[in-house]
Amino acid sequence: MIYLDHNASTPVDPRVATTIVEASSEFANPASVQHRSGQAAAEVVEEARNHVADLAGRPARDVVLTSGASEAANLGIIGAALGGAPVRPNIVVAATEHKAILSAADVAAKLTGGEVRRARVERSGLVDLSHLAELIDDTVSVVALMAANNETGVLAPSRAAAELARHRGALLFTDVTQLAGKGDMANVVDCSDLLVCSSHKIYGPKGAGALIASRHIQRRLVPIFPGGGQEFELRGGTQNTPALAGFGRAAQLAAKEQPADAQRLAHLTDELLTGLRLRLSDVEVNGIEAERLTNTLSLRFRGADAEAVMTSMPGVAVSSGSACQSATPTQSHVLLAMGLTHQAASETLRISLGRPTTLDEIEHATDEIASAVVRVRELTTRSEG
Amino acid sequence: MIYLDHNASTPVDPRVATTIVEASSEFANPASVQHRSGQAAAEVVEEARNHVADLAGRPARDVVLTSGASEAANLGIIGAALGGAPVRPNIVVAATEHKAILSAADVAAKLTGGEVRRARVERSGLVDLSHLAELIDDTVSVVALMAANNETGVLAPSRAAAELARHRGALLFTDVTQLAGKGDMANVVDCSDLLVCSSHKIYGPKGAGALIASRHIQRRLVPIFPGGGQEFELRGGTQNTPALAGFGRAAQLAAKEQPADAQRLAHLTDELLTGLRLRLSDVEVNGIEAERLTNTLSLRFRGADAEAVMTSMPGVAVSSGSACQSATPTQSHVLLAMGLTHQAASETLRISLGRPTTLDEIEHATDEIASAVVRVRELTTRSEG
Repeated sequence: MIYLDHNASTPVDPRVATTIVEASSEFANPASVQHRSGQAAAEVVEEARNHVADLAGRPARDVVLTSGASEAANLGIIGAALGGAPVRPNIVVAATEHKAILSAADVAAKLTGGEVRRARVERSGLVDLSHLAELIDDTVSVVALMAANNETGVLAPSRAAAELARHRGALLFTDVTQLAGKGDMANVVDCSDLLVCSSHKIYGPKGAGALIASRHIQRRLVPIFPGGGQEFELRGGTQNTPALAGFGRAAQLAAKEQPADAQRLAHLTDELLTGLRLRLSDVEVNGIEAERLTNTLSLRFRGADAEAVMTSMPGVAVSSGSACQSATPTQSHVLLAMGLTHQAASETLRISLGRPTTLDEIEHATDEIASAVVRVRELTTRSEG
Repeated sequence: MIYLDHNASTPVDPRVATTIVEASSEFANPASVQHRSGQAAAEVVEEARNHVADLAGRPARDVVLTSGASEAANLGIIGAALGGAPVRPNIVVAATEHKAILSAADVAAKLTGGEVRRARVERSGLVDLSHLAELIDDTVSVVALMAANNETGVLAPSRAAAELARHRGALLFTDVTQLAGKGDMANVVDCSDLLVCSSHKIYGPKGAGALIASRHIQRRLVPIFPGGGQEFELRGGTQNTPALAGFGRAAQLAAKEQPADAQRLAHLTDELLTGLRLRLSDVEVNGIEAERLTNTLSLRFRGADAEAVMTSMPGVAVSSGSACQSATPTQSHVLLAMGLTHQAASETLRISLGRPTTLDEIEHATDEIASAVVRVRELTTRSEG
């Protein structure tokens, strides 16, 4: 299997796996600080927090460790929506946010009695800043704009959005799940009030993520899940020592290797696109006008249904739409929001490369994908003819 | 280190560790059912769900997999409190519930505008059923009564509570985190509407748990964290394949080995208590009048401050109060609710044995604990004299 679905999930880096195994020996409850076993587990958790903080360039105290980015998003968005004094009931999201963010906003709005306002995006995939400005007023608690889109890789104008939010006293919530490890985060971190990231998208284990916010912002949050008071009273439940240790190690590697990884993947992505275009006509890159992640290609193969293409190449793992939504197959809300027709969206594949991807795999994948598209186009022409 | 704090967290059973390592090779996103890698991961998750369901004696469809019992408790309690039509704003809890349950009830009541009513417990640790009956009326959505207390091991009168709840149209929420793997669950499962359990308390990995409820009850829940629609639209976020696989394996082992484990631990607990009483006067068992878990001893050593005893025996890991609360040291609300004085509560240690505990360890621990208590009593007498 050639795995080109790294935006859905990544394999655990072997160096991270070693850390997880080592951390597993500290099995006591990190909250059991009354004995040495618990203290040792707590130290592992704090070391992980430090690494995640370093990746973001923030102090360790800003990092609230969670079971993943979805949970962190709910804590951030619902917590901030409920936590205002007075409560600001409305939430603004870009139409192309991840479904986890959209659903967190829906839950928050239901609880505050407010509404979720969706900002339009342009054909490029970039949010329409003038529409965004219109939507943000004094009733808005949070503006959610993901740093890099999981389907198209399009990078958001975070700083401009932050200014619009700040001007109205709203918080900017930035999902950096896809940007972390793939692009420079400094700018985005600098202008965001709330950030979420995920371990299993940066070659760490599943089951770990973080909400990153200053202590000042944390104090404003109403926790949805305070439990036993862990994580600065914001996130209950026994801390998952081995997974957090793995997340920390993955964050450390991501910080160190991101520039080289991004450069290498840019080259491989280029090879893939060039190879496909040599073999196929009518290949369109969604979001081509925008700056994008170097590992991600959202490609429309005109006249070739994406599901059929995938069925026709069982040896290559890619996706149509977001993996997290694949379980309930509907058309990509991201592509439709960008103005693609239903037809165009249904002819789009997302191909996402990762740290283990080799040139050899890219050459094979080019062949497989091109052949599959040709086969599907032939069948389609025949059945229509 | 002699680890006698298994109610706080358990080491991963080596057989479970093997399963986790095997499952780790299925690293794709289980929601990516469009390709074989994702399908393979999804199969691992479903197998785990089956094992957890078997432990509870429920169909697999009843099991909602989460990041742990705390999260599951919040989904169950907040989800049920918000999900009534019409909403019943109030929640009844036993005064001795785990802090994660109490805080979930607090969050729920804040969201519904209702109140949390705490049912008194008797000196035995058993809930006062006549007080419970008084508190449950038509405004109550959920009655939370844990099956086995984490500090004392006292087993609850679940069936009687279920009848009181049913009579008023409220749901019985039962935390079986401590009972699972340690006692027979059939009765409790049979009479409960909502159940939660945890992986890391049954020799599985941290980061996994479940809410168990019939499809009918699930439909009534308002999800606090729906994310990408995973887990029957009740719990979003990428499913944690390796942790869930480990949880499943741990559940399978717990189901099979529970009777033998409980018998062996009853014997070792007995040895420990007998040994301590041979060496020490004034040892009291909290909850002695009630039926209790066979692995748990809540012991008051009159005249010996528990913190001082623990400091005096760094080679033995036990706890005072609940581990999950140790991080913020306050006196045990469980013991105080049972009518112990602050003095008595501060002289209480919780000792919880587990599957790896050996007779040799128990003999050593008996010496260590007895010597530590003697030392602390001597120092106390001297400083007072």
